Formats: sequence, C-alpha cells, structure tokens
Amino acid sequence: MGEANPQVAIIMGSQSDWPTMKHAADTLEALGVSHEARIVSAHRTPQRLYDFATGAREAGFKVVIAGAGGAAHLPGMTASMTPLPVFGVPIESRTLKGEDSLLSIVQMPAGIPVGTLAIGRAGAVNAALLAAAVLALTDSALAERLDAWRRRQSESVAEHPSDDA
Amino acid sequence: MGEANPQVAIIMGSQSDWPTMKHAADTLEALGVSHEARIVSAHRTPQRLYDFATGAREAGFKVVIAGAGGAAHLPGMTASMTPLPVFGVPIESRTLKGEDSLLSIVQMPAGIPVGTLAIGRAGAVNAALLAAAVLALTDSALAERLDAWRRRQSESVAEHPSDDA
Amino acid sequence: MGEANPQVAIIMGSQSDWPTMKHAADTLEALGVSHEARIVSAHRTPQRLYDFATGAREAGFKVVIAGAGGAAHLPGMTASMTPLPVFGVPIESRTLKGEDSLLSIVQMPAGIPVGTLAIGRAGAVNAALLAAAVLALTDSALAERLDAWRRRQSESVAEHPSDDA
Amino acid sequence: MGEANPQVAIIMGSQSDWPTMKHAADTLEALGVSHEARIVSAHRTPQRLYDFATGAREAGFKVVIAGAGGAAHLPGMTASMTPLPVFGVPIESRTLKGEDSLLSIVQMPAGIPVGTLAIGRAGAVNAALLAAAVLALTDSALAERLDAWRRRQSESVAEHPSDDA
Amino acid sequence: MGEANPQVAIIMGSQSDWPTMKHAADTLEALGVSHEARIVSAHRTPQRLYDFATGAREAGFKVVIAGAGGAAHLPGMTASMTPLPVFGVPIESRTLKGEDSLLSIVQMPAGIPVGTLAIGRAGAVNAALLAAAVLALTDSALAERLDAWRRRQSESVAEHPSDDA
Amino acid sequence: MGEANPQVAIIMGSQSDWPTMKHAADTLEALGVSHEARIVSAHRTPQRLYDFATGAREAGFKVVIAGAGGAAHLPGMTASMTPLPVFGVPIESRTLKGEDSLLSIVQMPAGIPVGTLAIGRAGAVNAALLAAAVLALTDSALAERLDAWRRRQSESVAEHPSDDA
Amino acid sequence: MGEANPQVAIIMGSQSDWPTMKHAADTLEALGVSHEARIVSAHRTPQRLYDFATGAREAGFKVVIAGAGGAAHLPGMTASMTPLPVFGVPIESRTLKGEDSLLSIVQMPAGIPVGTLAIGRAGAVNAALLAAAVLALTDSALAERLDAWRRRQSESVAEHPSDDA
Amino acid sequence: MGEANPQVAIIMGSQSDWPTMKHAADTLEALGVSHEARIVSAHRTPQRLYDFATGAREAGFKVVIAGAGGAAHLPGMTASMTPLPVFGVPIESRTLKGEDSLLSIVQMPAGIPVGTLAIGRAGAVNAALLAAAVLALTDSALAERLDAWRRRQSESVAEHPSDDA
Repeated sequence: MGEANPQVAIIMGSQSDWPTMKHAADTLEALGVSHEARIVSAHRTPQRLYDFATGAREAGFKVVIAGAGGAAHLPGMTASMTPLPVFGVPIESRTLKGEDSLLSIVQMPAGIPVGTLAIGRAGAVNAALLAAAVLALTDSALAERLDAWRRRQSESVAEHPSDDA
Repeated sequence: MGEANPQVAIIMGSQSDWPTMKHAADTLEALGVSHEARIVSAHRTPQRLYDFATGAREAGFKVVIAGAGGAAHLPGMTASMTPLPVFGVPIESRTLKGEDSLLSIVQMPAGIPVGTLAIGRAGAVNAALLAAAVLALTDSALAERLDAWRRRQSESVAEHPSDDA
Repeated sequence: MGEANPQVAIIMGSQSDWPTMKHAADTLEALGVSHEARIVSAHRTPQRLYDFATGAREAGFKVVIAGAGGAAHLPGMTASMTPLPVFGVPIESRTLKGEDSLLSIVQMPAGIPVGTLAIGRAGAVNAALLAAAVLALTDSALAERLDAWRRRQSESVAEHPSDDA
Repeated sequence: MGEANPQVAIIMGSQSDWPTMKHAADTLEALGVSHEARIVSAHRTPQRLYDFATGAREAGFKVVIAGAGGAAHLPGMTASMTPLPVFGVPIESRTLKGEDSLLSIVQMPAGIPVGTLAIGRAGAVNAALLAAAVLALTDSALAERLDAWRRRQSESVAEHPSDDA
Repeated sequence: MGEANPQVAIIMGSQSDWPTMKHAADTLEALGVSHEARIVSAHRTPQRLYDFATGAREAGFKVVIAGAGGAAHLPGMTASMTPLPVFGVPIESRTLKGEDSLLSIVQMPAGIPVGTLAIGRAGAVNAALLAAAVLALTDSALAERLDAWRRRQSESVAEHPSDDA
Repeated sequence: MGEANPQVAIIMGSQSDWPTMKHAADTLEALGVSHEARIVSAHRTPQRLYDFATGAREAGFKVVIAGAGGAAHLPGMTASMTPLPVFGVPIESRTLKGEDSLLSIVQMPAGIPVGTLAIGRAGAVNAALLAAAVLALTDSALAERLDAWRRRQSESVAEHPSDDA
Repeated sequence: MGEANPQVAIIMGSQSDWPTMKHAADTLEALGVSHEARIVSAHRTPQRLYDFATGAREAGFKVVIAGAGGAAHLPGMTASMTPLPVFGVPIESRTLKGEDSLLSIVQMPAGIPVGTLAIGRAGAVNAALLAAAVLALTDSALAERLDAWRRRQSESVAEHPSDDA
Repeated sequence: MGEANPQVAIIMGSQSDWPTMKHAADTLEALGVSHEARIVSAHRTPQRLYDFATGAREAGFKVVIAGAGGAAHLPGMTASMTPLPVFGVPIESRTLKGEDSLLSIVQMPAGIPVGTLAIGRAGAVNAALLAAAVLALTDSALAERLDAWRRRQSESVAEHPSDDA
C-alpha cells in the first residue's frame, strides 16, 4: 500500500469502517494493484470529500472504492464529482444490518452511477476484484494474475464437505 | 414566495419533486413565513449544493427544508455544510415507495443531524409546520398564527364519519 | 442538567431508554445547553404525558426531545399537545431492531410534525445537536460553541485508517 | 347504528378511514350488536381522545374498536386510558401499504394490550367478529347468532372453483 | 395454574415457546385468573389441535391465548374451530426475528379473527392482560384487581431516569 | 381436468385464488397430468381440510398443490395431515403483496415440509412443473413430455430483443 | 452416506454451509434413504455445476437438495439444467439473516421450479423429509418408515410445558 | 447498435426486460459506445449463458451489462464465467417491486463481483454510464464525450421549480 502512483483509491467514512475495507486493500495487494486508503467523511469532512473527488482523476487514480454505512452518502457524492468509475461497499450497520447502507448506495438516480457490491466483507473483497477486472482490460500482466487468482479459487473448492473443516 | 428576505429555503433534488414539495411552500405561505424554493441536485449539481449549503446562513436563511428521493443525499449533505437546522422530506420513490428515501435521510451518523419527516406529502406539510414552530420560538405573531392554525385543524375534525364525505 | 430554567426537555418512555437518551443529555451538556430529563410513558402514564405536553411551553421549555421504542407513541402524542418543536429518537427494539420505533415516530400525518433522528445512540446525539442548532438561531454564543464543536469534529477525522486504532 | 346503549365504540383517526371501518360497523349490524362510530384523532384532537378514552367504560361501552393508519397511535393511546378491551385495525397507508400502521399498533409494550387485526378491510370485519365473540361469552342469543353466522360462512364455500365466478 | 375450572387456555406450539408464554401464565396468576397451559402443535399434533379447538368452549374455557413462531398456524387454526376469542402471541423466531410469526398470525382473512399482540415477552404479558380485560367485563372483583394492577403500573414509573437503575 | 383417477390435487383457500391457481391446472393439462381442483379453506372450512388432508393418500392422489394468501395456513396444515408431497403457492395479497403469504407458507418448522414456489402466477406454473417432475420419476412417457416441454421453452427464447415484441 | 447408488444428491455452495446441510443428510440417514453430499459452487465452480446438473439424472439421482446463501444461485441454476425435482434450502446469511437467500431461491420465473424450504436448519431437515416423501410414492417400505417417523414425532410432543425442560 | 466490434454486451433474461434495458442501449448510443443486445436466460437457456459467458472476452467484449428480475441469476452466473467487469441491473418485479431482484444480484459471495446499479430504468442508464466510464479510462475521445455529457446534465438542472414543468 502507498506506492508512488496508486491506481485505486480506497476511501471510507470513518476509522470504524477499516476492519471491513481492509479486505479491499488486502485483495488489491494480493493482485499487485497499487492503492491508497484514506478516510473521507462525507458528513464530517465535506471539504475533504470535495477536494478528493474533484481531484481524483488528476491525482492519477483510475478507480475509486468507497465504503460507508447507515445513510451512506460517500460513494454517491464521490461519483457526482469525478468521472472515474466508483464502486460502493455498504458497511454493515448496527441496527438495520446494512440494509440502510445498501439502499443509500445503490438507489442512485439516473446520471450518476455507483457500482454497488454486497454488504460487508464480501463486498469489500469484490470491490477490489472488480477494480482489478477494470484495470486488467488494458494490463495483460494483471489480467493473467487475475485469471490465476480465479483459477486457484475454483481449485480450492473441495469436492465433498468435511466434518473436520 | 420570493420575498426580500426569505427565512426558509426549500430545496429539492429535481423538478419532479416539486409536486410533493409544493405542499411545504403552500403551508409556509398559509402561515405567513417567507421562503424560497430552489432545485439543488446533490448528484447532478454538486457545486451548486456546495455553494448553497456553505452560504445558507450568510444568505439569511434560518431553516432549510430539503426533499429528495431514492439514494437521497441532499438533506444530509446540506446538513454537513451548514449549522442551520435541516429538515428532510423523503420523496416517494417508484419501486421501493420511499423506504429507500427514508433510510437514506434519517440514518445519519452522530454529528450531523437531519430532522426527518414522513414520506411524501404529509412530510412536506410537516416540514413547513416544524420550520414555523422553530421560527415561532422568537416570533410571537407567528406563534399566534400557528396556534390558530392548529386550533382550526382540531375544530375541523367531524364528530362522526359520514357516508357522504 | 437540572438548571433553574432548562431550555430542552428530554423525555423517554422508560428507564430502559436512558442508556440511549443519556447521549442527548451529554451532548447538550457539552454544548452548554440547559436541559432536564424526565420519564414520561405515553402508555403507562398518559395523564403525566397530558400534563407535561400541554404545559411544556408555559414551563419555559423551547424544544422537546422524545425517545421511545416499539409502538413508539410518545414523540407524536407530545407533538399533538404542544406547539414546541419536537424531535423524536427511535430506540432500538429487541426483535425488530428499531424499525418499528422508526416507523411509529416518523410516519406522522400531515398537521403534527415530529423531526425524527436515526435509530439509537446516533439519533440521541443528533437530537441534541438539532435542538442546539434551533436555539443557536437566536443565541450567538451558543452558535459559536456549536460552530467550534463542528470544527473540532471535522478536525478529529484522521487522514488514513490505522490498524492500531 | 346509534342505538340508546351501544356496546361497541368504533373510533377512527379521520373521515378517510371510514370506507375501511364501515366494514366493522356493517358486520356488527349484521350480528345485531349495538355500536357507535366516532372520529377521534389522536393527533389532531388529543383532548377528544382523552375525554373519550377515560370515559368509555362509564359511558357503557364494553369493547372499543380503533382504526388508524401511518404512525397509528389511536388504538394504543386509547388502551392506555381505558380498562376495556381494545382491538386495533391498521389502515392501509399510501406509501408503506399499512406496514407502518401494523407495527405502530401491534408492537405495544408490556402493560397496555391492543388486540390487533389484519391490515385493511379484513381487519375491520374481524375486529367486529372478535368484539362479538367477547360479548357472546355472556349473551347466549348473540352466541347463537354468531354460531349461525360462522356456519353460513362455512356453507357458502363452494366445493370447486368456477371460471364463471 | 391448574385450578378446577380454568377460564383461560394458554396453548403453544412447542416446549421451546414456554419461556415466552410463561409470562402470560405469570400475569394471569398475578391477576387471579384461572388458566391452564398446554402444548398443542398445529403441525406435529393436528389431531390434538382439532380436539382441543372444537372442544374448548364445552370444556369451559372463555378465552384462548395461543403462541407460535415461524409459519405460525396455531392461533388462526384454533380460531377457525372455536367461537371463543383467540389472542395470538408471535414468538421471536431465530432468523427473521418474529416478523414471519407476526404476519402469519395477524394477516387472517375476513371471517376468522385473531387478536394479535406484540412479538415475544411483551405480547405474552399483554395477551394475559387482554384476556383479563375481557373477563373483567362481567367479573367486578377481577375488574378491581385489574384496575389496581394498572394503577400500580402507573405509579411505578419514576419521574426521572437514574444512572443507578 | 376431472379424470377418473387424478394424480394431483390442486386446492386453494377461496374462489378468488383461482385466477392464479388456474395456471397450475393449465400447465398440468398441457403435460397430460390428471388433476382435480377444489376449494378447501383452512379457516372457513376446517373440517373439509381435515377430511381432505387425512384422506388424500387413500383417495389416490400422489401430490398436493396448495395455494393460499395472507396468513396462508392451507399448505402447512395439509402437510401436517398427509404424508404426500405438498407444494405451496403464495397468492399475491393486496396490501403486503404476498410477502405475508410467502413467509406463512415457507417458514415451516422442522418436521413438516412444504416445498414453496414463487409468489403468484409463476409459482402456480412451477408447482405444476414440480409435481410433473416428481411423477415423471416413475412415468417415462411423462418424462419425455416434460423434456419436450422444457426443450420447447428453451427454443422459444429469441436471440435478440425486439422493439416490436 | 455414500452407498453404491445414492438416490438423493445434497449439494451446497461451500464448506461453511455443511453445518446446516448436515441436518438434511442426518435426516435421510435416519429414514434409510441413500444420498451423497457434494460441494458445488455456482459461482466459484460453474463448470462443476454444469457437469453435475446436466448429468444428475444419468448418474441415477432421483432428487436434488441444494443449499445456498446470499445471492443463492445454486438451486435455481441446477433446476435449469436437470429435469429432476430440486428442493432449495436458504442458508442463514450474516447480515440479512437469510432473507436474501430465501428470495434468491424462491422467486424463480415460470418454467424452472425450485421447491423452497425454510431458512436454515429447519429447511434442511424438511428438504430431506420432502425428498423422502417423493421417493416413498413408489417405495412402500420407505413410506412405512416415513409414517413411523411422523408418528413418533407426534407422540414425542408433551401435553404440558415443563419448567424443567 | 450492432457495429462490427461491439465493446459492451447488454444481456437480459427475457424480452420483457427490454423496455428497461433499452435505456442502457440508448445511453451507450448517445455516448458513441458500440454495443450489442442479446437475450440470454440463465434459467431457460443455460447452455446459451454458458457459451456466451465463457466466450465473452474472446468475442472482444470489454464490459457486460446484465439485467434480470426476481430470482435474478444472470448477472452473477455471467460473472462466474468471465473475467470481464459485469454490471447488474435489477429489473422491477411485479410483486416484490425489485427488492428480490436487487438482493439476488448484489449479495454475491466474496470472489465473484457484480457491480450493481439501481432498480429499473435509472439502473439501466447508470450501467451504461459506468461502462462508459470504464472504457473512457483508455479512450480519451470517449472521456471527453462523457465529460460533455455530464456537463450538459448539470447545466440542464433549472434553478427554481416551475409549476409549468
């Protein structure tokens, strides 16, 4: 994490989202995709959001992964201020279990898209895989690493369930 | 609507929210509260949102009423950029009937409050009444008009249901 | 809490709501807003509710914060009997996680508004902040304290997530 | 409807609830149970609610049927102020289809019961049948009428579906 | 529990419902209402259900309280086979938290009523209170005990929340 | 429909379910599977349900398809009284759109299975196809007809969407 | 488990589904129905799914039980590629508690049926019972074992709840 | 539509999805992105799905947009068989209004991502915009067209709502 020219920005609304979003960082790491993780709170640091989002393309990012919970405005507001692809990860919320996060992220109006992943850890992993799939379109070495990752994933599935697993 | 020094700003995400939000304007009109209605799209005009919200207090507004539907980010993002009280109206959405709008507005994180009203027309009327109640705290003439309005409302309730109504 | 002339009444349906509503009291305390907390059960003490609500303005309160769970009738019934602004906090319920509390509070009919905050602790904090924002409209010292509070909140957001946090 | 000494009070929040609640009145009529229908708005006429509920037993009512929609507080608040059995009918609401009405009525805290029926017309009919079942416990003539009603209901069910029905 | 001529039958789908339904028995006990608790599984013992429900009135019961979870058919099927008032208690289910139980009990078709109480313990207590309210209509001693119970409940509500509670 | 020895019983709670359940009958007809449709209301005709379900195997039926809406008890109660496979079809309900029907049918406790299909017309068609698949296990002519039906279904899917369709 | 010619295939999306699906295997074991359990991930091993499903009938299976969670595609995709009866078990998911699994399995379009059971363990037991009921149609020894199993289940239900249970 | 070397594949489960998915095609057309629309039913044409998905990269597609309703398996199953980015559009379903479609598409397990858009028309438009944003990363002419499209979108938002609109 933190190379010279990171391709993927991982942003999140607060430190408490990191245990979930770390899975996005770890997955990008495993695939050899440069990335940087930042805390950008749509609500508590709106100026930081404005600065980040309007400058993301010029900063050299190619894809933005944004995680947020509850009334989760970070992914959609970022998408409103950058032409880059934005992928959203609904963080599991305490009371409504992420259903509020999911609807707040996915139900964007026509005109401003956020590609939304599953609630929680699975969504964070998949946001990273989707970002890698986007970058792999023009990076054949990454495409090969991603193919290998998927192959290993398939091969790791056992034939029969085990009571010892 | 549109007096020299409007006290309440009514903002909404798009022209299609106006048939709902017009009820807020009509209610303020009936109570003699100055107001101005604007379209401010969090997603399609983020710069306009930024300019409006950061300047609302200086512009002389006392209360902001914000209506939005779907992934409804306008009320919360406005609240993140102004110290004024913000009241949110969830617009009834086509598929999820405003449940998405409601959760996107009400489930704000600690630190940035949005006082949320009911989905649709009732919420728009009530946002206006709540704004009036706030302003009436230091405007005794308005307090009297609001009291009278509530009294008339109580008196208009019939004693028995009528098949002709 | 408990000064001579409290501006904000914090009411709740039962002692078991206090661990949530205490966050409203603590936030008002931090902002220097006088307040008083009472238990007023809409269902078990309807007379106390009637007495409190019809007398709240004359008692000198400016804003009422009401927390309740399940079939949460306290905020709405209070709003039906006082012209003061009422802010409602849905308490997280055991089985339905506060979804019942939220709908019972927010879906008020046109005519009687309750400004509703998020379910649980975040809602309690935000009800206090919203009450403070209302009072700050005509109290410049409080406005400055609230601005400072919001500034500190923004500044406390770290730039990068930390595995040690 | 409207006999000298009605046994069942049918109350509802507004005139607009009557098309639903009329089915309760019609069912009681068919069973020969005296009743009276009134509009009592928990929110717009709280004093009327207080007067009705605290005086319902002395007025000679035996059972109260209360219909309400949205943040439906009428059944529960009535139950808080009368020892009579209260049966609640959730009115179908425009946006959330009565799910809000149902939860606002049924999720009462321990101590104040409301026997809740189905959303809408079926609930209104059934509230009347349940009131009749209660009264039939000590009215053998009514018990016989109710038995006959149930028998006719069973006999009216055809053996096979018909394309002409 | 278990007097010569019990007035209230408490039935439930399985032994696992007893920790919830015991609160109904305890409340009836406290009010001096005779009752009997039985396990009657609509699904595993349909013959027992049939025998119980068709014979409940002749057995001398006045009211039936039925608790069930998941696809909760016990209250409604009992109501289809007895003219007695039936009150249903949705048991909190493991995965859907009693939302399935609630809908399966409350959404009865027109013709067969089940007065439904809240999910879980509160519902069990309230089913007992509602049964007592029904019986108190023609039992003035019970009416006085119920009034006293309600008065004590009101008086037990503290004025102010306590951090030591 | 109505051959000497029907293999599939299609039962439903009321005449109003027939427009949905007719699709099950039509699909069985198209596959050449003998069947009979009856109205059996769990709530209004419990004796008929008892008689039907306890005698279904002896009557020669092999599979039961049961459609019901709201608090849909028919499929589960039938399954409790017959060892035959029972497939349930949730009828779309007016207010809750069949979500109540679905949960009331599918959430059966361990011990009494109901194979549940989709809400509404699709579920009725599929209940028939599933019944046919069961019977085809030991009826090779039916298996061939079912294979052909599936083949035709696949072949009928156009390659490209058409604006004229 | 694992006899020469197993009649029932139990498939599941991952090893983590086994603690739930094992109840299906145990129930079949208790009923003397041969079966085999395999891990077939619709998403991670689509080729294995294709091979299994298109070959299941030829492999001698009579019924397929498929368990999956979240966006649960395994049951429906299997049903699209085999004429055998497929019964689906929604696995309880972490955040949405199996509501997502249930809807993903049960809401199949007309043409491809999946008989869906309850979420979690109850569903797994019932999928096995339903498979046995299908096989028992042409296996009288199994029919007798299944009858005995159901009889024992009915007899095991106690008459009265016990505080010691 | 239908150029020599289309970059985006738009697939959908049936002809009935076209009125929704046509908005994706129209949006790509407006942005000058080559595309091709096909009907690929996961359930009715599983072989076609297999052939399409495993061959999509070799066919020269860069991005796949997949729309489906109900138990919507098409997007996820496509993603399981191609390394290309897959964006899913939940089609509004008749009874559950697309909530089933949404959960069936978005709640994918870790390992196989589907970037999910809003339910219905807005989701179809946004899937096209997201595909364009991906392709624009390495196509500066498209990037300029997309920037212009976004600029025009912002400029088309009126300042004030109009009663004549």
